[in-house]
Amino acid sequence: AAMAAERALAMATCTAPVNIAVIKYWGKRDTDLILPINSSLSVTLHQDQLKTTTTAAASRDFTEDRLWLNGKEADVGHPRVQACLREGERPCPPRGRRGGSEDSAALSLSYKIHIASENNFPTAAGLASSAAGYACLVSALARLYGLEEELSEVARRGSGSACRSMFGGFVQWQRGERPDGTDSLALQVAPETHWPELRVLVLVVSGEKKPVGSTAGMQTSVETSPLLKHRAEVVVPERLAQMMQHIRDRDFEGFGQLAMRDSNQFHATCLDTFPPIFYLTDVSRHIIALAHRYNAHHGHTKV
Amino acid sequence: AAMAAERALAMATCTAPVNIAVIKYWGKRDTDLILPINSSLSVTLHQDQLKTTTTAAASRDFTEDRLWLNGKEADVGHPRVQACLREGERPCPPRGRRGGSEDSAALSLSYKIHIASENNFPTAAGLASSAAGYACLVSALARLYGLEEELSEVARRGSGSACRSMFGGFVQWQRGERPDGTDSLALQVAPETHWPELRVLVLVVSGEKKPVGSTAGMQTSVETSPLLKHRAEVVVPERLAQMMQHIRDRDFEGFGQLAMRDSNQFHATCLDTFPPIFYLTDVSRHIIALAHRYNAHHGHTKV
Repeated sequence: AAMAAERALAMATCTAPVNIAVIKYWGKRDTDLILPINSSLSVTLHQDQLKTTTTAAASRDFTEDRLWLNGKEADVGHPRVQACLREGERPCPPRGRRGGSEDSAALSLSYKIHIASENNFPTAAGLASSAAGYACLVSALARLYGLEEELSEVARRGSGSACRSMFGGFVQWQRGERPDGTDSLALQVAPETHWPELRVLVLVVSGEKKPVGSTAGMQTSVETSPLLKHRAEVVVPERLAQMMQHIRDRDFEGFGQLAMRDSNQFHATCLDTFPPIFYLTDVSRHIIALAHRYNAHHGHTKV
Repeated sequence: AAMAAERALAMATCTAPVNIAVIKYWGKRDTDLILPINSSLSVTLHQDQLKTTTTAAASRDFTEDRLWLNGKEADVGHPRVQACLREGERPCPPRGRRGGSEDSAALSLSYKIHIASENNFPTAAGLASSAAGYACLVSALARLYGLEEELSEVARRGSGSACRSMFGGFVQWQRGERPDGTDSLALQVAPETHWPELRVLVLVVSGEKKPVGSTAGMQTSVETSPLLKHRAEVVVPERLAQMMQHIRDRDFEGFGQLAMRDSNQFHATCLDTFPPIFYLTDVSRHIIALAHRYNAHHGHTKV
């Protein structure tokens, strides 16, 4: 601990990927702990194209915690950011020991922290930027503090889907049963090497912010949509098992069709929300129709 | 019968109204008999604004059945038109007697028929033109043949929702239980005099034909949408009871909100269909958003 106190600056940089859910997450059973009403499953994209890069620095010269997003200072006091920061600062000796550096606990307790995070893609375009962002923040903090524990639980506290960006390949976020959320974790279903020829085409239709944010939107859906309740209780458990099998079999036809159906059903529950939430635009609807015409022309699911 | 044979021409003209469902019909359990998977409930609009006018004429000089829609000759052999025509021609003495004219049966069996039907509104704009059209056809034929039986069952064979246009005011189309459809009938829940201040504002957003017709669309929905199944089995029975209560109480807040929710849920099941069906356009979405903003401004449901 004495050694740590003399270090002027400790710094760690990480990158984190975007993930695209093929069985969607929509709806929380606990809004504070961010516990979902259904399990979800995603594909993690390669960081060659889209990624978040975050540097976390701790110094005794810093007088306050600060945060920059894409070069612009942001509110470090945001409850979700604080949930991730506090997690690293918990004085927890066994964890510090596991990390191998005895100065970690001291670092985290006494030093203020500066965080800079950047996306190499449009932040508000629905590309799971908060997922990549919080996954990256938690990874950078963990490296800074030398933590090696289960980090997806911490990332989940930043943004639900962030827990899935802690792994590559195919990742399931287990709903979990416990009220404290300790079993609501991300697990890798298959590594990226399992299905290397799979490609995800990302079409950015608009750079504008969503008309209703996910947090408020999904809460309204939980409160007002009878179809969302049925989806979470009955439809998703069946689909999750099917999707795992399609991934195991590398069955693109089954995988692609089920991903389309599940995406549509998510949008359907948004429409069943009162007042209704519209995330699809005429442009995205045209792209969907184009994909169906393309597949019909080829006689099977190619996109 | 001898008298009838000497009449050169028998003719009857009727008008029929458009109805707007507030608990929607979507999905058949029998495609041939047009039996729905759920009951529905509608408001019949006043014929001062929108109506269909149909004239049916029978003559021994006619050599074949013919049909004109909005002045243009159409296919009289269409199975649904035939279902309505054959119904009038069933040699059924007790019915003829009830009608009071003994020549009815002879008329219907031996004479060819000419039908002309006109809408005073855009036919393809989603305004239930086929409902009004078939209700009108069945009424005109019944008058021609002097029939007085339960006609909503016959109208239903033309177009499901046509059975609801056989009555004014608030009309329920009972799902029915029997496989032969004899209990799948329309019933008036309350006459138009029950809630005279209720107004329906019809906004025609497009005069174009729907991208997917109702018949094909709802069949695909029945086959592919798990949410539609849940809607029909669980959600609609609850909502139907609520809606009847709102009508009884003349509770516009409850009536309007439930009508909005149910319309949205119908569109949600279209979106949950594979491939998805889109009936809402950006224009209709803007109108929906405008109505919600207007109501939010006034603090309660006015539209």
